[in-house]
Amino acid sequence: MIGGTMTFEGDLKTVRQFAKTELGGGNTQWDQLEDKPAQVYEKFADAGLANWWLPERFGGRGLCLEDSVEIVNEIAYGDAGIAFTLFISVLGTSVVQLYGSDDLKDRYLKPMAADGSFCATMGSERRAGSELAKIETVARREGDDLVISGPKYFSTNADFADFLIVVARAHDDPDGHLAILVPRGTPGVEIVKRWDVNGVRASHTFEVNLDSCRVPAANQLAGNGLRVLEIGLNASRILIAASAIGIARRIRDHCMDYAKSKQFRDTTLLDSPVFASRLGQMEMQIDVMKSHCLKAARDYDAIMRRDDAATVFARQGTLKSAVTAKMFCGQTGWDIASVGSEMFGGLGYTSELPIGKLLRDMRYVSIIEGGDDVLRELVFGRYVIPKPRRT
Amino acid sequence: MIGGTMTFEGDLKTVRQFAKTELGGGNTQWDQLEDKPAQVYEKFADAGLANWWLPERFGGRGLCLEDSVEIVNEIAYGDAGIAFTLFISVLGTSVVQLYGSDDLKDRYLKPMAADGSFCATMGSERRAGSELAKIETVARREGDDLVISGPKYFSTNADFADFLIVVARAHDDPDGHLAILVPRGTPGVEIVKRWDVNGVRASHTFEVNLDSCRVPAANQLAGNGLRVLEIGLNASRILIAASAIGIARRIRDHCMDYAKSKQFRDTTLLDSPVFASRLGQMEMQIDVMKSHCLKAARDYDAIMRRDDAATVFARQGTLKSAVTAKMFCGQTGWDIASVGSEMFGGLGYTSELPIGKLLRDMRYVSIIEGGDDVLRELVFGRYVIPKPRRT
Amino acid sequence: MIGGTMTFEGDLKTVRQFAKTELGGGNTQWDQLEDKPAQVYEKFADAGLANWWLPERFGGRGLCLEDSVEIVNEIAYGDAGIAFTLFISVLGTSVVQLYGSDDLKDRYLKPMAADGSFCATMGSERRAGSELAKIETVARREGDDLVISGPKYFSTNADFADFLIVVARAHDDPDGHLAILVPRGTPGVEIVKRWDVNGVRASHTFEVNLDSCRVPAANQLAGNGLRVLEIGLNASRILIAASAIGIARRIRDHCMDYAKSKQFRDTTLLDSPVFASRLGQMEMQIDVMKSHCLKAARDYDAIMRRDDAATVFARQGTLKSAVTAKMFCGQTGWDIASVGSEMFGGLGYTSELPIGKLLRDMRYVSIIEGGDDVLRELVFGRYVIPKPRRT
Amino acid sequence: MIGGTMTFEGDLKTVRQFAKTELGGGNTQWDQLEDKPAQVYEKFADAGLANWWLPERFGGRGLCLEDSVEIVNEIAYGDAGIAFTLFISVLGTSVVQLYGSDDLKDRYLKPMAADGSFCATMGSERRAGSELAKIETVARREGDDLVISGPKYFSTNADFADFLIVVARAHDDPDGHLAILVPRGTPGVEIVKRWDVNGVRASHTFEVNLDSCRVPAANQLAGNGLRVLEIGLNASRILIAASAIGIARRIRDHCMDYAKSKQFRDTTLLDSPVFASRLGQMEMQIDVMKSHCLKAARDYDAIMRRDDAATVFARQGTLKSAVTAKMFCGQTGWDIASVGSEMFGGLGYTSELPIGKLLRDMRYVSIIEGGDDVLRELVFGRYVIPKPRRT
Repeated sequence: MIGGTMTFEGDLKTVRQFAKTELGGGNTQWDQLEDKPAQVYEKFADAGLANWWLPERFGGRGLCLEDSVEIVNEIAYGDAGIAFTLFISVLGTSVVQLYGSDDLKDRYLKPMAADGSFCATMGSERRAGSELAKIETVARREGDDLVISGPKYFSTNADFADFLIVVARAHDDPDGHLAILVPRGTPGVEIVKRWDVNGVRASHTFEVNLDSCRVPAANQLAGNGLRVLEIGLNASRILIAASAIGIARRIRDHCMDYAKSKQFRDTTLLDSPVFASRLGQMEMQIDVMKSHCLKAARDYDAIMRRDDAATVFARQGTLKSAVTAKMFCGQTGWDIASVGSEMFGGLGYTSELPIGKLLRDMRYVSIIEGGDDVLRELVFGRYVIPKPRRT
Repeated sequence: MIGGTMTFEGDLKTVRQFAKTELGGGNTQWDQLEDKPAQVYEKFADAGLANWWLPERFGGRGLCLEDSVEIVNEIAYGDAGIAFTLFISVLGTSVVQLYGSDDLKDRYLKPMAADGSFCATMGSERRAGSELAKIETVARREGDDLVISGPKYFSTNADFADFLIVVARAHDDPDGHLAILVPRGTPGVEIVKRWDVNGVRASHTFEVNLDSCRVPAANQLAGNGLRVLEIGLNASRILIAASAIGIARRIRDHCMDYAKSKQFRDTTLLDSPVFASRLGQMEMQIDVMKSHCLKAARDYDAIMRRDDAATVFARQGTLKSAVTAKMFCGQTGWDIASVGSEMFGGLGYTSELPIGKLLRDMRYVSIIEGGDDVLRELVFGRYVIPKPRRT
Repeated sequence: MIGGTMTFEGDLKTVRQFAKTELGGGNTQWDQLEDKPAQVYEKFADAGLANWWLPERFGGRGLCLEDSVEIVNEIAYGDAGIAFTLFISVLGTSVVQLYGSDDLKDRYLKPMAADGSFCATMGSERRAGSELAKIETVARREGDDLVISGPKYFSTNADFADFLIVVARAHDDPDGHLAILVPRGTPGVEIVKRWDVNGVRASHTFEVNLDSCRVPAANQLAGNGLRVLEIGLNASRILIAASAIGIARRIRDHCMDYAKSKQFRDTTLLDSPVFASRLGQMEMQIDVMKSHCLKAARDYDAIMRRDDAATVFARQGTLKSAVTAKMFCGQTGWDIASVGSEMFGGLGYTSELPIGKLLRDMRYVSIIEGGDDVLRELVFGRYVIPKPRRT
Repeated sequence: MIGGTMTFEGDLKTVRQFAKTELGGGNTQWDQLEDKPAQVYEKFADAGLANWWLPERFGGRGLCLEDSVEIVNEIAYGDAGIAFTLFISVLGTSVVQLYGSDDLKDRYLKPMAADGSFCATMGSERRAGSELAKIETVARREGDDLVISGPKYFSTNADFADFLIVVARAHDDPDGHLAILVPRGTPGVEIVKRWDVNGVRASHTFEVNLDSCRVPAANQLAGNGLRVLEIGLNASRILIAASAIGIARRIRDHCMDYAKSKQFRDTTLLDSPVFASRLGQMEMQIDVMKSHCLKAARDYDAIMRRDDAATVFARQGTLKSAVTAKMFCGQTGWDIASVGSEMFGGLGYTSELPIGKLLRDMRYVSIIEGGDDVLRELVFGRYVIPKPRRT
């Protein structure tokens, strides 16, 4: 069973408490590149919430994606970088769950449920960003092993992950791609550097090099590697979109708190009709962001609940609503953050207020896992050209 | 029971067929002010679909608002003016259903289900547009009767309606307002003129004057008249929003049809990446419009399904999602129509193509039943100021 | 000498008076397809203003394009369709002036100055809208004559013009194009139909067919026909942009007039801070539209004042600022019209108020003489790719 | 004489060279809060360009504001924070020039021309941001002196300025305000802190406290202090707007450089039509920003060139075009920066590329010296309400 709503309310309360207690600190607390994953992750795991989406049969909380939208929304209200770190493993675990052998699931998903550890995905490369078919990383079969080499550009959590899902070209087939589970400790996995990112700075993204990493051939996930990656992106894109809701709600509340104390004429900014107009618009937008994220999550859950989920996803690949949720929340979130960043006068341009950080955090939604120009083209090609797939 | 999804699929098919057969005509067919309601309404009634939302206990189809969103979406794809005419009676019937006496329901809802006839609402006045508390229409108690006089500015369907829901000030209480069911044939109901509207021109909107219209006091609906009107607007606003989806889908398909045949370089416009980008964005927007309309409709249905729906609505008044759905679909629809209106070169600026009409039709979504400036203020005052009501 | 500013102030006063007296009528006066050019054009000519840009040596007023921006701004404030009719001849006269023989200038420009008559341009074709190189109209040399045949899609003023500037393919050179002056009375010039346009409905645009129209070879203008057309578009694009200023100012004033009398709370809409905010933004936008139109006009005038204007224009072709003025004013004008169209409540959606017409009129700015997608590509290719031409 | 264009071309070349040589460094070079003004300012002064707008009679370069727009545009292309530091003194010097005694001009403007030193303005306070009439800083007359006390929130360059222009309330007149020149070394001028700003981080903005600062009464500038400040803002707002052009051009060039080397399909991103479309739009916007800044600067120069400039400015106060230039360039610059920030994929979200910094730098244009909500209201009240002042 995926998603127990009875337990969910309790979990959500725990998450809210966590966000308030652990993330409600100073404005700059989560806005720096810490050396190592913050202690806050351990506290999240201690609360029994780490990797909350893992099915109960692996020892997880078994929450569905619809519930996950709410959870990510709440964590991102506290800090989007921490939210990103906490949910991005869903990409890797979902493809292991769908396309890994039973042995792989047991060996790699169970510890993640038990220990609150992380996994990472390694898809994009320097020359293959939006055009993944151009990746240079190659997997060569040697006996019962696969030997993988190549440069990977952006991989969040990679350094401290339990395992990596690596997308590679098949050595003997230029059009064939593999998705392979590579344990982090495999010799040849080299962290080139950590990226100094503009926002979500509590998260950790790395450039990684794979130098003849040898893993058992059984570590390969079923199906074409590019397709597997595409399927994994469904859950992560929906949760990235959901994180925009949290950031947006934080901006709204931050505006309201400021307005309450800010003098304006004979009263406070709260009584300014122009301010009211901006906040009314924001609230409407937040409302819509949430509706569409939840809709996308339900689409996802409806497939995941099926016995033949792996087959259905293999046929369908990218979920339309997952893509449009990320597009919409990225665009709308940026609009909210832009408007918000003009609300605080000069003070909003200083580190005294968190709006500068929230603006930078929001930017990531439209950038990672496919920029809008790429996604618009994908939506057009897959869902507008074929008449029956249009909304 | 509200909403039988088993029968709904069949109904939706009928509606699609109706839209295709009856509304799929020339570009200008529904873009003129016809003298009287088009014959097409009879055909809709013949198909058994008129006032589809009326409960089965009054002889109606009993479809819920979530289903209605799909129905209106389909009719509006054909013509938004006809859709508007067909669904706007929901405002009047829903408040009779919630706040009318059993006798009123029997006498006025049953014929609407049986005959496919119409009702109309008379709220706004020349000096009281967005500020309804300023209306001048007065209802005076005389024995067991109410005598109503005053000018009403915009009332769709009023001329050929079975009955009118009139909002009036109480003669003896400046702050008291009544909602009263006035049969159309009541002496003193005078049609001043039909408005020459910019779009949705297949619909009929009238200026009406009430000159000492006498009705039984039992025709008054329970509760404050302004509140009753506000509650009635929930369903109509959601369906106005839904009509924007239909217009938007029509624009998209119209763009695609044009692009298929329009030469561009060595190929057709369909292969233009910039065109693809615009259509990909449009599709995303349509997707989101639909998610949020359906969400709002579910919110509405959840209350309507309750035994204490009248009480819950009386307490709650305006549904937040109903307002934000109209706001969002109006804004997004206008964006789609604006982009669409630039897609056809000079030809799109002529009557040869329907885009000019579709643009004008779309405009109504943001204008009727509350402009965005009014609604933003309402959202702010009701849902942002009180912290627990924020999304 | 081009542009006598001493006389210009007087002319501008005359134009303002003309716009007020002749164009200040009812809302729908200029919003219909009249059978023939309105009498108003004769009145304009009687005031000595027709074709005001024609040089004094041809008997014209000799006003420069910077002055013309102001004139068009004022006429378009009254009615954009009439403005369009009155200024669009500039396309044809400017290329005759630059690239016609002395004989052609004497025979065709002088009467236009004397009689206030019109000329028309015939460039675009059904299959060659934005890609003019694909036109099918062919000019064949026969002795001292040119014989021209082909279909022309949109040509404003063509029916009642003195002459037409026809762009045709050279019969014997697929890559060669000619611009030819064809007297309107030439046998074979057939008006196919008048277009029923969405806005600027006081103007007259025709589909025209050329069936073996024979003119002297000396009627050919010097230089490549596509280049000649491109050069002619400089003046007309700037004046189309200028007409957007007039429409925008009219919308602003219309909003202000309405607000003055519209009740709002205890006062009028004029005291609404949200209204003030919208109008403040509009005013800023109008300010900028004007600055950029005048800048583009000065760029144009600076070349036209040179003795080698024909050579300079032949080298330069499209003026960057002419294109960016049309793009900017089209986009910004549409934004103003969109905002304006939400300012009047339900009344603004009826024919009682002119806003619906103004919205439709504004749309033409972004559509004729190159849509924005086409112009963005042109700006990129010509002015961004070559580094020294970037702003 | 103001503005010698002959010398200007040479100056502009020097500025371009300066921007290239001194500011063309690494991406993060100017993106940190250095302890003290960078050495780069000395180099700018060595080039003879410091405070280039100071009239020749004070030993300055005497460049007009139209020339200054180009200069600031070029410096801001290199770094907007350095540009801001270099031009913001214009606020103080222009009001000393207009409203200071001859003695003040000699004693304070001449050294600034000779040494390339700075001045600062102290207007805004914590509780009086956009509503300056509420300032708490008080000036009390004591004999021939003025004694000034009060807290000033944001003052750029204050720490290392030669003098401060302080706006204070008159001790004995709640509605009277003074503008007073306070030498930086005056006892009681206390730097409270330096602000940690989100962008333009090469600039230095301070919170300052004035504790019984005693200056000669002759240090008071003529006229009401609020009016004096308003007049001073004209030049600085235009130059803030101009700095947006420089940042925007840098973003455009940065996009182009990236596109040239970024693989896209079988070619580079430079051949992507969607990329072309975005850059074509950007170029148009930059074109318009420049037209309007130059227009505003010409408006300013036209007054400054008059013998009665002080009187004209006192009557007029805020220049409309100065305000609309800042509004427009802030909004359009933000649009360009937002679009630009999506152009670089994941790499654009890291410190490897300057786009993150450019985005943050751009934000300041809409925030300092009046947010858009404040300025829209000002434009409405001053230039839309009075009919003759409308554009």
